[in-house]
Amino acid sequence: MDEGCVFCGIVAGTVAADVVLDDDVAVAFLDRSPVFKGHVLVVPRVHVVTLTDLATESIGPFFERVQRIARAVPSALDAHGTFVANNNIVSQSVAHLHVHVVPRRKRDGLRGFFWPREKYAAGEAARYADAIRTSLRNA
Amino acid sequence: MDEGCVFCGIVAGTVAADVVLDDDVAVAFLDRSPVFKGHVLVVPRVHVVTLTDLATESIGPFFERVQRIARAVPSALDAHGTFVANNNIVSQSVAHLHVHVVPRRKRDGLRGFFWPREKYAAGEAARYADAIRTSLRNA
Repeated sequence: MDEGCVFCGIVAGTVAADVVLDDDVAVAFLDRSPVFKGHVLVVPRVHVVTLTDLATESIGPFFERVQRIARAVPSALDAHGTFVANNNIVSQSVAHLHVHVVPRRKRDGLRGFFWPREKYAAGEAARYADAIRTSLRNA
Repeated sequence: MDEGCVFCGIVAGTVAADVVLDDDVAVAFLDRSPVFKGHVLVVPRVHVVTLTDLATESIGPFFERVQRIARAVPSALDAHGTFVANNNIVSQSVAHLHVHVVPRRKRDGLRGFFWPREKYAAGEAARYADAIRTSLRNA
């Protein structure tokens, strides 16, 4: 537990939240400013900052909870699907790993601006792939 | 393997891609239209459509690969963090589970429009949470 971390406060029960799941691995609760209503945040009980900080043995149990939420949210809210996302460092508003599960509906207006895209010049993609492969080998 | 699925083709090696990881669990390759260059898609070798279709025993191994990519991408590209996301059904361009790992940098321009937000009326959040809890109990 990290003193001053609002999500650790929710995990500990000292900060109020609309909790939907609370077990030995994770706590899930409504985002107070939802992309769409019913937008849930899933956080591990343990205080880690990003996805890369989560212990290997915790990855399966944690994402099993994310999967359960991704199944329950559209079922509960009569939505068509979900957007499941996590910001690591950049755009991360709270420094405690949290996975967003956002209910999505066809024609909910989110698509058009959601995925701006770039283009690779000739040969450029291969160089990016090579850099990532090298980093994976050295990790 | 699903006939006609382009990601199954990449897994099988019959469709070209800039592959960065290829093992018994997952294949990871560059998105051809990156949000930012170095944007990787991680797919399970097995053909499943959404996160909720992934077998429980595969969740840990699959997201361990996602974590490895989320560690390697910013390291390889001198980025500050990552955006890790998956669209289920709505906005899902290919019907084979794929997790996006997008390199992020401070002031890369993505934040402002990225997370439009709604507001709950008084008492409304509690009703949403209750519906999701009910769905979790019945899942």
